[in-house]
Parts: sequence; structure tokens; C-alpha cells
Amino acid sequence: MSSNVSVKRLVSSQADFSQQLDTLLAWESVSDTAVNEAVTDILHQVKHQGDKAVMAFTERFDHLHVEDFSSLEMTQERLKQALDGLPAEQRAALERAAERVRSYHEKQAQGQGSWEYTEEDGTLLGQQVMPMDRVGVYVPGGKAAYPSSVLMNAIPAKVAGVEEIIMVVPTPHGELNELVLAAACISGVDRVFTIGGAQAVAALAYGTETVPRVDKIVGPGNIFVATAKRMVFGAVGIDMIAGPSEILVVCDGKTNPDWIAMDLFSQAEHDEDAQPILVSWDKDFIDQVEASIQKLMPTLEREPIVRVSMAERAALIQVKDLDEAIEVTNRIAPEHLELSIEDPKAVVSRIRHAGAIFMGRYTAEALGDYCAGPNHVLPTSGTARFSSPLGVYDFQKRSSLIMCSADGASEMGKIASVLARGESLTAHARSAEYRIKG
Amino acid sequence: MSSNVSVKRLVSSQADFSQQLDTLLAWESVSDTAVNEAVTDILHQVKHQGDKAVMAFTERFDHLHVEDFSSLEMTQERLKQALDGLPAEQRAALERAAERVRSYHEKQAQGQGSWEYTEEDGTLLGQQVMPMDRVGVYVPGGKAAYPSSVLMNAIPAKVAGVEEIIMVVPTPHGELNELVLAAACISGVDRVFTIGGAQAVAALAYGTETVPRVDKIVGPGNIFVATAKRMVFGAVGIDMIAGPSEILVVCDGKTNPDWIAMDLFSQAEHDEDAQPILVSWDKDFIDQVEASIQKLMPTLEREPIVRVSMAERAALIQVKDLDEAIEVTNRIAPEHLELSIEDPKAVVSRIRHAGAIFMGRYTAEALGDYCAGPNHVLPTSGTARFSSPLGVYDFQKRSSLIMCSADGASEMGKIASVLARGESLTAHARSAEYRIKG
Repeated sequence: MSSNVSVKRLVSSQADFSQQLDTLLAWESVSDTAVNEAVTDILHQVKHQGDKAVMAFTERFDHLHVEDFSSLEMTQERLKQALDGLPAEQRAALERAAERVRSYHEKQAQGQGSWEYTEEDGTLLGQQVMPMDRVGVYVPGGKAAYPSSVLMNAIPAKVAGVEEIIMVVPTPHGELNELVLAAACISGVDRVFTIGGAQAVAALAYGTETVPRVDKIVGPGNIFVATAKRMVFGAVGIDMIAGPSEILVVCDGKTNPDWIAMDLFSQAEHDEDAQPILVSWDKDFIDQVEASIQKLMPTLEREPIVRVSMAERAALIQVKDLDEAIEVTNRIAPEHLELSIEDPKAVVSRIRHAGAIFMGRYTAEALGDYCAGPNHVLPTSGTARFSSPLGVYDFQKRSSLIMCSADGASEMGKIASVLARGESLTAHARSAEYRIKG
Repeated sequence: MSSNVSVKRLVSSQADFSQQLDTLLAWESVSDTAVNEAVTDILHQVKHQGDKAVMAFTERFDHLHVEDFSSLEMTQERLKQALDGLPAEQRAALERAAERVRSYHEKQAQGQGSWEYTEEDGTLLGQQVMPMDRVGVYVPGGKAAYPSSVLMNAIPAKVAGVEEIIMVVPTPHGELNELVLAAACISGVDRVFTIGGAQAVAALAYGTETVPRVDKIVGPGNIFVATAKRMVFGAVGIDMIAGPSEILVVCDGKTNPDWIAMDLFSQAEHDEDAQPILVSWDKDFIDQVEASIQKLMPTLEREPIVRVSMAERAALIQVKDLDEAIEVTNRIAPEHLELSIEDPKAVVSRIRHAGAIFMGRYTAEALGDYCAGPNHVLPTSGTARFSSPLGVYDFQKRSSLIMCSADGASEMGKIASVLARGESLTAHARSAEYRIKG
């Protein structure tokens, strides 16, 4: 029988609570020099040698040898075959999830279109909103290959109106994940290449003879992928650089402690660095959750991972009251926030920073991960302070519209002239002055 | 008398036009190893030694010695004094520009708020939109200190509802720019520190004893600032990394060629790397613009800069017709696009990529730079393919809202269970299954 796991306890009334919290949350993803150098070299080679370099790196890193680059592309027929080959229950669940994700993101797109207004003198101002032309979706291979991630990355792009979605997924030793291919089929992914790592990011960012250059790359990956994304940012758009996943559960002590323990585990099972935190003002309840943790731990399939995450990164935090729980929440700016309390609607507007807010005792994070509709690609490691869930807006961009009437240009020309001369930009001033009425 | 400048001519019917265009547009901002190492060191020192390190770097790079960090902060009284000290005409122009910028961004904010909807079973889905808490605005010192940039960066943040705006501006040898301070006053900037470079970026990203940590850093800077921003991205949000400014003028040949030449100059006078391009299907008109360029060049205050930019980076491109002009435009994805044609409204929806679109013969880019209302912080170097003008949305972030009813959780629990088991995430599955009705 396995021994109990020791989970950190923090109490907000302790003098060094703030410092303890800082230590708990400290996380730095470091691309060391070796990774930086390797990725720099891969990007350079793919940029200048295209397909040939991608094939060579795929052989070296994924142990996948092909004679011709075309063997690294999957046909739409193959995707359809994966979908048709699924057990009926899995297929139905995947399709239902895709429907709900699509429906939510269609709501999100509403009111996000172009707008304009005309001023009294006839001058028109506004903004034109357009989808990106082509987007790349990175899907990790191996154990972290999640079909749900394909839905969450590809569907918002399609809803935004992106014409072409290119998916890359490494298949080490040629090993394919049928669920991932089926999800690509359902999401309307246009082309799939079985390539991965920094070489796939480079191919998408710069384009090769076969892989078309995209406008933005989204999707999670390992440290090589994350480093490559950071480096190509500017040549191409990227989504956020994801850190380990975290959940913060705020509970009033009236939810079944087994439920809360399992909610924490559902985060912990992702990987050893995942961070599950419970905040409550009910000390007895925290004890009950801890008992549930010890009781349920041995029943988990992924116990070895969960055990490390719970011991190293988890915490049970006792606060004074709901107000302090909200304060701690805003300080943490969690990726996932469960408000397992009686009246979550009453407090949600006081949550300033959180990727997704799961309200009420029934709303397990796992429902949002798969099928509630909102995106499961969320800002980690406190970046909810300044980032948003992946959404339709991530696949659109805007152009300002300015159309001055003759009168408008004349009046604005006077202002621009004064300001431009104040900045010693006299060609600006003269360009504006040409439009001032004589 | 100065000699004529030789401006590149491209003709779309030439066999190697596409290649010539690639060469013309090629631009890579390279942070070399020396810059990377210097910035890495500065970030490290400021992160660990705070105020002390910032003071030391300010002394070393800006030749500004202070005994106490508080001397590096400007008071609100000092900002007000700068505003009150302006000539009446300048003050009025600055205030009028600020009003127009505010008014446009208030329109932009409309319809960008929180939303939610309820499904038949009572499940609530939506998104909560919140401003960031605190934002840093970087303002370059010396010759590139533009008061208009202060307005363009700070006002959208204020309109978004950001509580505190921290401005940093280097003052080499203690030299202050009164117009910049006045613009800070008008924009409602909350605190101003006279620091700059990578040390200012580090102070904003990590916080020091005196400088509060911000959630996002916006504003242009030199290669040290840009490199620092790229490195702190993740700890803090950043805006885009700006390249040299560019303008693309599409003209049907019926605008005064002097106007067009001056519009090109207004871009060229920014710096030697700035890129002004004219596209027209009227060869005679291109000749006329070239004649205007030669005629007006000697009359420019910033002739030495303009001359380099026009010779090295400018181009006059002759295309077949309007359709091909639009094609070239979308390929270039310009920061600024002037549609100096008879009916710009008829074609604007075919412009897929551009930072800002200036429509009609009266709408000089310079009007948009200062006072039309839309932001002048725009995506450069073709990044309009995936980026937008700076806007209110850059200072907001979103949280997904999910509140499942008991029925909703039960139905969704079934779907999530199947998918989680398909991904071998069984704690996810069990967390969802707890919510399935018995």
C-alpha cells in the first residue's frame, strides 16, 4: 500500500503567507543555451533548405524516414478513414463536443465585425475586421496528443473565417493517433503534415517548397517548440507560450470533498509540474479534502504523476473568508478557477484575473476541458493578468479606416501641421498643409 | 545644388517582378549576440537588485546621476507645468488631437464588453471582459520623442479602464521634452519615471522597490528596448515589436503629384530605413511623381534622411490596373495604405492586409498620424497579415464563464467522460462522472 502524500498547507494569517505564496507560484520556463542554439540552427536550416532540412530533422528526431516529402502529408481520405474507424460512442462524443465548441465561438464572433461612423463634416472613421488567410496548428505527438486540443485550436480559426488551416503533428516512429486524425477531420483542418518540433514551426513560419507559409502558429508543444515559436514571433504571429497547467478551487466547504479532491487530481494528472490549489475558509473542510486525497490517490491510473504534482506543486490554503479568497485568487490569476460556492454569480464580477471561471458545484473543470464550449487553451502562470483564452479574435485582425472629407482634411490639417512642426517632422506638416483649404 | 536621387522603378510585367518585390521588402531586425548578452545582464541585475541597478544603468547610459530613486520620478505638478507652459496654439492642437483619439477609441470599445447566454437546460456560458490593472508606456527619449505617441499609447489604455499607467522616458543628460510631458498630462498618465532602455523595461516587467510591476508594456524603442521586450514577454504582456515605418500609396494618377511626393516624404523623413512605395497603373503619372520628388527634395528640412530612405528603400511600382494594385497591396501588407483613387469605398473590402487605410485624395497619412482619431501604432513589415492597430482591446483581457446546471453537467459529463478516457485522462473522466445523475 502506498504511503500518504504530504500536501503543503498555507494559512493566510501567518506572517510569512505572502512570501510562501510567492514561493509556491514561482515558475520559470528556461530555454537553456543548448536548446537556444539547437533551435537557432534548426530554424536557419529549414529557412534556407526547406523540405530537405525538414525531412532530415524528422528522420533524426522522429526516427521517420521518407523518400519524398509528399509522404509526410496525410490525405483527407485518411482523416475521414480515422473518423469512420472510431467506436460509435467516441465519434458521437467528439462530434457533440465539436458542435458545442463551434456554437460558443460563433456567439463570441458576434459583434466582432467591421464598424464605421461618419462625422458631421462627412469624414468617415472605422475599422475593418478580416480573418487571417492561413493558420498553422501545432499538435504534440506521443502521450500528450489530445484530440480535444485539435478541436479547440482549429474550430475558432474556422469560425473566424480562416481559409486554410495547416496542422502539423509529429508521429515518432510513424505512430499515429486515430482520435487526433478524426478530430482534424471534424474540425475542417485543410492539410496535415506529420512533422513536429522546431522544424515544423520553422516550416510553418517561413514556408518550404511543400509546406505553405502561415500567418499565425497556435498550439502547445515541448521546450523546443516553445523556443522556436518565441524566435519566429514577428515573422509570424504566435499564441501564448504555455506553462504548466493549474487549477484554483475556491470552496465554501459545502461541496462533496471527494469531488474537490478529484477536481484537483484532474489537474495534477497532466504532468508532474501541474499545480492544483484549494482555497477555503473552512478548516474542517480542508481536512476532509485532504482525507479524500489520501483515500482516492491509490485508485488513480496516473497515480505516479499525480503523486509528484500533489507533493511538489499543490497547496491547501486556509483563508479568513470569501473576500480574502477572492483577493488570493486575483493575486494568483489562475488558468482555471472553480468557484465551488453557493452563489458564484454574486462574486464573479470581482474576479479580475482568471483564464476560465467554472461556476458552481456542478461545473467541474473537466467539462470545460472537453465540451462545455469555451476554449480550453487558457493563459497559464499568472498571465491571465494580461492574456485571454484562445478565441475567434486570435484569428482576426483589424485595419483602421479613415476617409476625410475636404472639410475634415482642412480642419485636421491645421492640427496636424502644428503638432508635426512641434515634432520637427516638416514633411508630415507640409503633406497635411496641402489639404488645408486656401 | 544637390543631385537628383535615384528611386527604384519596378514594373509588374517584368519576369522577375516577384523576386524584385521580395528583395525590396526584405527586412530583418537582428539582435546580435552582443545586444542579447547586454540585455540579458541588465534584466538579471534589475530583477535582483531593483532600484539600485536601475540607478546605476541610468547613470551609465543616460549620464544622469541621482542620489535617490525618487529624483527619477516626475510629479503631476511638473506635468501640469509643462502643459501650462506650451504656446496656446500647440496646447489647443494637442488637446484637440487627444479628444479625437479618445472619441475614436470610445467607439472602438463599444460592444467589446462582457456577454453571456443561457442554454435550455439552464447552463450559462459567456465571457467576462476586464481591463488590465496596470500598464507601462515606453516613450523614447532624444530625437524620437513624439508627444503624439504618448497620446496614442496612453489614451486607449485609459478608455479600456486601466487604473494606473506608468510612463517611462529616458532623459539623457537630464534633457526633458516639454511636449512629451504635456501629452502625458493630457492623456492622464498616472506616474512618470525618467528612465529608459532595457533597464526601464526590466523595472516595469519585474517591479522594483519604487517602480510597480505592470501587466503589459507598450511603446516603441531602440534595439535594446525591443530585445528586452521580447525577453520579458511571458512575465508581462507586450505589444508588437515594431520595424521601420512604411507607406504604400496606390494612386490612379489623378492626384496632384506634389501631394503624393510629399506623402512619400512624410514617411521617408522618419529614418533612413523607412520605406515609401507608390503603386500606379499610369506610367506618365509615375514620371510626374518622380519629377515632383526631384523638385521638392531640396526644400525639405530633413533632406539628408529622406535622401537615404528614397534611394535605398523607396520604389515606384507600375502595375497593369487597379486589380493588380490590390494584389500587390495584399502581398506587401503595408503599415499605412493610401488609396488615392476616385472611389476607395468600392475597393476597401478587397484590402485583406493593411494596418491603416487612408481613403481618398484628401486623407494624407499625416492626418492619421496625429489627429484623425485611429491609432498610429500599426503593424509594420508585413505583420498586418496577423496583427492589428494598437487599440482598446490590447488593454483588456477576457475570462470564459461556465456555469452548468445539474442537468447540463450530467449530459456534458457523459461526453467528457468518453473523451477523457480516450485521452487516458481518467481523473478528468471521474471528476466529470461525479456530476452525472445516478
